[in-house]
Amino acid sequence: MSNICITAFKWVPPFAQGLVRDLRVRWALEEAGLPYTEKLLGVGEQNLPAHRAVQPFGQVPVYEEDGLTLFESGSIVMHIAQKSPALLPPDAAGRARTLTWMFAALNSVEPHVQNLTTIDLFFPNEEWAKLRRPGAEAMALGRLNAVAASLEGRDYLEGEFNAGDLLMISVLRNLRHTSIIKDIPVLAAYQARGEARPAFQRALAAQVAPFAKNEPKAA
Amino acid sequence: MSNICITAFKWVPPFAQGLVRDLRVRWALEEAGLPYTEKLLGVGEQNLPAHRAVQPFGQVPVYEEDGLTLFESGSIVMHIAQKSPALLPPDAAGRARTLTWMFAALNSVEPHVQNLTTIDLFFPNEEWAKLRRPGAEAMALGRLNAVAASLEGRDYLEGEFNAGDLLMISVLRNLRHTSIIKDIPVLAAYQARGEARPAFQRALAAQVAPFAKNEPKAA
Repeated sequence: MSNICITAFKWVPPFAQGLVRDLRVRWALEEAGLPYTEKLLGVGEQNLPAHRAVQPFGQVPVYEEDGLTLFESGSIVMHIAQKSPALLPPDAAGRARTLTWMFAALNSVEPHVQNLTTIDLFFPNEEWAKLRRPGAEAMALGRLNAVAASLEGRDYLEGEFNAGDLLMISVLRNLRHTSIIKDIPVLAAYQARGEARPAFQRALAAQVAPFAKNEPKAA
Repeated sequence: MSNICITAFKWVPPFAQGLVRDLRVRWALEEAGLPYTEKLLGVGEQNLPAHRAVQPFGQVPVYEEDGLTLFESGSIVMHIAQKSPALLPPDAAGRARTLTWMFAALNSVEPHVQNLTTIDLFFPNEEWAKLRRPGAEAMALGRLNAVAASLEGRDYLEGEFNAGDLLMISVLRNLRHTSIIKDIPVLAAYQARGEARPAFQRALAAQVAPFAKNEPKAA
């Protein structure tokens, strides 16, 4: 019996609903079949000292399990993956390749996707953002097309679904406000394949459930 | 006896010398006391199909060991760390915390450091870069100050040096063209502590050795 608790938000604005990084951890827990409880932060609570003590950057998720406290969705997903063959193959080489794709998703692809979403969602009217957007999109496309090439002829990056796909598909979802993924059919099919997994659907429903209940009243 | 080969560059411009990501892998191998050979790519070879087949993004390093091929410096450093208590504590909780800091370095800190170095080193005269730089520096400082807070009262992030420090210090080094780290004494001392390690010194010497030999002739 596991004793897992994750920290997420009570509410986030619509542009972030279904994208907050606790989704990655919820998805991993659902794939692994591990029950968990949640601790929900209200507006601003992520910057209180009590939260910063367990998450130095004032973000979510935090993962707690029997005295162990982890942050960083990549690390938490790997910790969960080590408990389940649904996320990590049993052989050492397969595990190393999975971790390679996990870092590829979060260090080679996400930073460029994030630069684009930062421009589009936070600074759409800034002069620098307008000037930079074509270059930022070109950088992101370079990385995305490389991922698409790696997927040629297979359903998932290493053939079978693993924790690398979970993170990569989570990163691709951040471009939902654009047509970039739709315009790369291999990636669109890959993302749809991941999102069709029952574990993903349960994770998504669990993330958004509190948002409806906690929506701020109109002023 | 290990049979490890890493891929690096024959030569890079001075601004990148001592920063290319194979340094992280060389450093880990030196900490672990593992010998390795190197395969050096000439200008443009990183985009040839033969290299893209093993490194989808056309970057270095690639790590090869007895038929296993890995990319992503974070994943390679973890693969090496699993061979050595100098990089990874023996207990499960300590390993999970180490991986948390590895992802923190590469997903929460490096993207913001990289945005600043991209502006300063690649686009210094672009209008968007001038307009964006203060905001990009503020984002990076937010993350760096959080790392500094986590280091209060200790030499390394979890007390003893581990693979998380190796990556975090490697990321801090990318700001050497600025005074940002010098202005945060806790981080400056932390970086200096890591760079003083004999394993780091050997790794750095090994990375730059081919550069002197392969410097392009002046036109």
